[in-house]
Amino acid sequence: RYGLAEKEDQIGVVTGLAWTSVGGDLLSIEALRLPGKGRIKATGKLGEVMKESIDAASSYVRAIAPQIGIKPTQFEHWDIHVHVPEGATPKDGPSAGIAMVTAIVSVLTQIPVRKDVAMTGEITLRGNVLAIGGLKEKLLAALRGGIKTVLIPKENEKDLAEIPDNVKEGLEIIPISHVSEALKIALTRQPEPIEWDEAAEAEAAAAKAKAAAAEEGTTTIAH
Amino acid sequence: RYGLAEKEDQIGVVTGLAWTSVGGDLLSIEALRLPGKGRIKATGKLGEVMKESIDAASSYVRAIAPQIGIKPTQFEHWDIHVHVPEGATPKDGPSAGIAMVTAIVSVLTQIPVRKDVAMTGEITLRGNVLAIGGLKEKLLAALRGGIKTVLIPKENEKDLAEIPDNVKEGLEIIPISHVSEALKIALTRQPEPIEWDEAAEAEAAAAKAKAAAAEEGTTTIAH
Amino acid sequence: RYGLAEKEDQIGVVTGLAWTSVGGDLLSIEALRLPGKGRIKATGKLGEVMKESIDAASSYVRAIAPQIGIKPTQFEHWDIHVHVPEGATPKDGPSAGIAMVTAIVSVLTQIPVRKDVAMTGEITLRGNVLAIGGLKEKLLAALRGGIKTVLIPKENEKDLAEIPDNVKEGLEIIPISHVSEALKIALTRQPEPIEWDEAAEAEAAAAKAKAAAAEEGTTTIAH
Amino acid sequence: RYGLAEKEDQIGVVTGLAWTSVGGDLLSIEALRLPGKGRIKATGKLGEVMKESIDAASSYVRAIAPQIGIKPTQFEHWDIHVHVPEGATPKDGPSAGIAMVTAIVSVLTQIPVRKDVAMTGEITLRGNVLAIGGLKEKLLAALRGGIKTVLIPKENEKDLAEIPDNVKEGLEIIPISHVSEALKIALTRQPEPIEWDEAAEAEAAAAKAKAAAAEEGTTTIAH
Amino acid sequence: RYGLAEKEDQIGVVTGLAWTSVGGDLLSIEALRLPGKGRIKATGKLGEVMKESIDAASSYVRAIAPQIGIKPTQFEHWDIHVHVPEGATPKDGPSAGIAMVTAIVSVLTQIPVRKDVAMTGEITLRGNVLAIGGLKEKLLAALRGGIKTVLIPKENEKDLAEIPDNVKEGLEIIPISHVSEALKIALTRQPEPIEWDEAAEAEAAAAKAKAAAAEEGTTTIAH
Amino acid sequence: RYGLAEKEDQIGVVTGLAWTSVGGDLLSIEALRLPGKGRIKATGKLGEVMKESIDAASSYVRAIAPQIGIKPTQFEHWDIHVHVPEGATPKDGPSAGIAMVTAIVSVLTQIPVRKDVAMTGEITLRGNVLAIGGLKEKLLAALRGGIKTVLIPKENEKDLAEIPDNVKEGLEIIPISHVSEALKIALTRQPEPIEWDEAAEAEAAAAKAKAAAAEEGTTTIAH
Ligand SMILES: [Ca+2]
Ligand SMILES: [Ca+2]
Ligand SMILES: [Ca+2]
Ligand SMILES: [Ca+2]
Ligand SMILES: [Ca+2]
Ligand SMILES: [Ca+2]
Ligand SMILES: [Ca+2]
Ligand SMILES: [Ca+2]
Ligand SMILES: [Ca+2]
Ligand SMILES: [Ca+2]
Ligand SMILES: [Ca+2]
Ligand SMILES: [Ca+2]
Repeated sequence: RYGLAEKEDQIGVVTGLAWTSVGGDLLSIEALRLPGKGRIKATGKLGEVMKESIDAASSYVRAIAPQIGIKPTQFEHWDIHVHVPEGATPKDGPSAGIAMVTAIVSVLTQIPVRKDVAMTGEITLRGNVLAIGGLKEKLLAALRGGIKTVLIPKENEKDLAEIPDNVKEGLEIIPISHVSEALKIALTRQPEPIEWDEAAEAEAAAAKAKAAAAEEGTTTIAH
Repeated sequence: RYGLAEKEDQIGVVTGLAWTSVGGDLLSIEALRLPGKGRIKATGKLGEVMKESIDAASSYVRAIAPQIGIKPTQFEHWDIHVHVPEGATPKDGPSAGIAMVTAIVSVLTQIPVRKDVAMTGEITLRGNVLAIGGLKEKLLAALRGGIKTVLIPKENEKDLAEIPDNVKEGLEIIPISHVSEALKIALTRQPEPIEWDEAAEAEAAAAKAKAAAAEEGTTTIAH
Repeated sequence: RYGLAEKEDQIGVVTGLAWTSVGGDLLSIEALRLPGKGRIKATGKLGEVMKESIDAASSYVRAIAPQIGIKPTQFEHWDIHVHVPEGATPKDGPSAGIAMVTAIVSVLTQIPVRKDVAMTGEITLRGNVLAIGGLKEKLLAALRGGIKTVLIPKENEKDLAEIPDNVKEGLEIIPISHVSEALKIALTRQPEPIEWDEAAEAEAAAAKAKAAAAEEGTTTIAH
Repeated sequence: RYGLAEKEDQIGVVTGLAWTSVGGDLLSIEALRLPGKGRIKATGKLGEVMKESIDAASSYVRAIAPQIGIKPTQFEHWDIHVHVPEGATPKDGPSAGIAMVTAIVSVLTQIPVRKDVAMTGEITLRGNVLAIGGLKEKLLAALRGGIKTVLIPKENEKDLAEIPDNVKEGLEIIPISHVSEALKIALTRQPEPIEWDEAAEAEAAAAKAKAAAAEEGTTTIAH
Repeated sequence: RYGLAEKEDQIGVVTGLAWTSVGGDLLSIEALRLPGKGRIKATGKLGEVMKESIDAASSYVRAIAPQIGIKPTQFEHWDIHVHVPEGATPKDGPSAGIAMVTAIVSVLTQIPVRKDVAMTGEITLRGNVLAIGGLKEKLLAALRGGIKTVLIPKENEKDLAEIPDNVKEGLEIIPISHVSEALKIALTRQPEPIEWDEAAEAEAAAAKAKAAAAEEGTTTIAH
Repeated sequence: RYGLAEKEDQIGVVTGLAWTSVGGDLLSIEALRLPGKGRIKATGKLGEVMKESIDAASSYVRAIAPQIGIKPTQFEHWDIHVHVPEGATPKDGPSAGIAMVTAIVSVLTQIPVRKDVAMTGEITLRGNVLAIGGLKEKLLAALRGGIKTVLIPKENEKDLAEIPDNVKEGLEIIPISHVSEALKIALTRQPEPIEWDEAAEAEAAAAKAKAAAAEEGTTTIAH
């Protein structure tokens, strides 16, 4: 049973690409945002490298929070759960990194992800996209699964020479070097950045606390 | 000793279906809600995959809380304990996912589960139902145990061709693709959704705090 | 050295029954209640299944708290320590479940347990009693140890056919299907239930807080 | 190098007795009380059974706190560190249980322990003393080390038949069945019990809080 | 695929040098600063020794905080994530210590790191630089990767005799004995120290609290 | 490469002595004090016994805090990091205990340690010094490394007979039985004790709180 593209654009669901000894497959990456305390939960029989990949994705997203319209302080009030079905199949490796980032950004911004886009690429803490293995098998799986656009690492562009022509014709293959390009392509609309000046925010919080104290004072004056 | 259907409709008790090397069996899934701090406890010699399945079920239920009449903020005041007797028998796999969701929803809403319904199916974080193995053995166990209705994944519908006629005649077999269908069928009545607008709630809480402060002010004015 | 029945009725001490490769034995289950934070400690070289059995027993007792005269909110202010001597002997299995429940209820209610009663049976989260193994060996150990009454799972009643007559004559053997029957028989007196309506309690707590605020207001008015 | 009795009566230092494949030895058990949060630290290359033995000893002492003049609520403000030198020698087993209790009581009450007393015996959560192994080797080690009085479990009294006469003549051997007897003999003076009525204490705390509120009210009246 | 020098000076990204059975390579060390609670996260399939090396680097930086313009109390409000891509490649050893310090200082001070500098050296808690292995392979990797300046431990200076002349001519090799030298060379500008007197700070905090209380008093006087 | 004595007297750096299959060596023990929450971090590829040795050293120092001029309550506001370079070399055993105590006392009191002193000896929770192994190899390493004074356990004094004369002539070897002797010799000056009466402190804290309340009252009276 091969994986198929999602049936509709969904919030927090991204199509990754897996490479195993028996070929490539689509990998559904799901993220959920829950009221909480800044915890990350990762399930789906994931190996240590994939779990660390989720940690890196999560830290990257926290670091760019204002660019996607999220106040950094908001993270302490949410838990994020990343799950990769099917739950009995072991999964590992860093190559779903950009899919993790995209799923987390989607669920935090509540912007759906294009169902016809798949992606593969390791990310660094700065969002740079690093090379992956199994490009050919992954592209075959994408084609077979009904995907239209596949994002691959720029570092893998040279490997396209070995890919059969029918695959390259059946898919729009876009090499990227930074995960921000993945967000531009895969999200159905772009999040609006907010201004965030850490020092200014600290001052504002202090001012607000002072004003609150003053107001309390005013109330007291009335009696 | 084969498992039998429960003797009455109970709150928090759901009949799942297990598949082992020696055939299928009924699996009683029990959930309990306790005053607490948002913790999940899972017992019954459960393997990692089944424990992750409970995590996924729990996150799904937290995410749909308003639809089942529960305020999301309420979760931080409850612990949930999921136990799968018999305690000495190792159990694993993701296929009890929809039973876990149903047990948790039942115990949170205090709505009983129909004793003559059994179910099997992996769930995703969005409540989609994924295929399971051992359908034939599980259906035989359901029939033998006195079950009337069995919920199976839509993805397994094609496997019904191999199921003996007497089994298909003795059971109402309902293929489902989303766990919400399981809740509709298995709960003895439907929970009433509540309105929940996260932003509005935050504002309301702030307003309430302000009102409380004002009232305190009024009291003080009196002296 | 074979285990003997306790010398007096004690609070928090219950006689369980163990079954090993070399026969049956009495098992002393001890529970202690300490000022604390709702933690459970389990010691005595216990295997995972027995530890989970203590978790299940503890959750069951928390769930029925009002029926035994305990406010559910009280649990957060106690730690419970369950110990099974002899500390160097490994112990495992779920069959001490009803003894665990009885020991915990005894120590919480401060009601002693009858020294001439032994019991064996797995419990579910709803207090149902499930079948155990080694019935014959366990009954022999009970007889040898000076026990008068043995509580066994109703599901094991059919196994009594294989038990020698002298054993059945020397012991009062009582099959039970719910742990509440064990509490009725083993505790030297019955706990008095309290009323507990979760919603009402929440309201009462709110009202009390309001009243306290009002009283404070009154005090302030005086000056 | 064989262990010798301590050179003076010390607070928190108790002489236990070890039994290994090469014979018996004295075992120095050290307890320290530190300002803290109710934590227990156990060091000295201790096996799981000996660590659990320290847990049991600690719970027992917490449970009898008023009898040794300690308020139960005081425990949350102390950490207790139990160390068994020599740090590179692995140690295990439950037989140092009564020595653990004695060391902890000594350090909490600041009452020294008699340097010429050694002891061996497992304890239960109720302070009962259970049989130990290696009695002969342990007594030889005590004699050789300059110990005058050895406390052994009542359950081991029957084993004294096999002990050489010179050992029995050189040592005062006292069989005990409860750890309170060990405290009576080994502590250089007896702790004074305090009254402690949990319910009364809760009420008193409430009353005190009320009085404090009233006093605040009075102060406020002055202006 | 050999590692290359970074393309631009970046904040929190330092080039380390790895030595494996197949030769040397560049190692990108990434640090990220997030709003948090003083936690350190380390990812990239790192062995225990490299993780401890990050701990030591972090403690060193906390200890010299005022010298790099950071208030020591600020650390409790940040989390630091150190990641070493590529995520699937196991890495271990203490020799990236000075690179860890430099990455952490860079991200805390927001001062970029020179892209043409690579460094290798274990650090102690006082910032001293200890000898490393594989100097030759590491220098070859640096040359091949386009690095201009390589910082090595003073203790390894004697090993330069065995390094081919073309390598020594193609690189500026600077032996250092303290990590402060690495910071001087690798950061694009130097952080400005702040005054920090622990005792004075504590007093100032107390004074501030008193002033706040006085101001509150003043407000109250007005009514 | 053999270890050498430190080049200057440093705060928190003590020279220990290691004994391995290939001979003895100097071991640099580093302690750092950081603003924190009473945590101990131990790094340097340390085995369990050496980690426990650091725990014991830390508890001992906390217990004697007033004797070295530190308020016991101060510990909750510091973290202590103990590191033993070289980070890739596994280290274990209890014999660095007195060096651990000396390093921690030095860093807490900010009093430097004499660079020409090395020490070896296990400690107990009361600061007693227990025998160590490898005395000959350790003394040779000390001599070779430029150490002038070596502190050894009194229990090892008898082993000096086997030590070559040139070693005994080249080193001042001081047998000690309590770690306080090590502090007297190794610290460049002695810490000044403070008075600390736990009960008195608790009363003082209460009085201070009361005075603060009164002062608040006074301020209020003014309006
Ligand atoms: Ca698949
Ligand atoms: Ca992938
Ligand atoms: Ca069964
Ligand atoms: Ca199932
Ligand atoms: Ca026995
Ligand atoms: Ca049993
Ligand atoms: Ca010894
Ligand atoms: Ca012992
Ligand atoms: Ca590479
Ligand atoms: Ca390196
Ligand atoms: Ca060395
Ligand atoms: Ca040493």
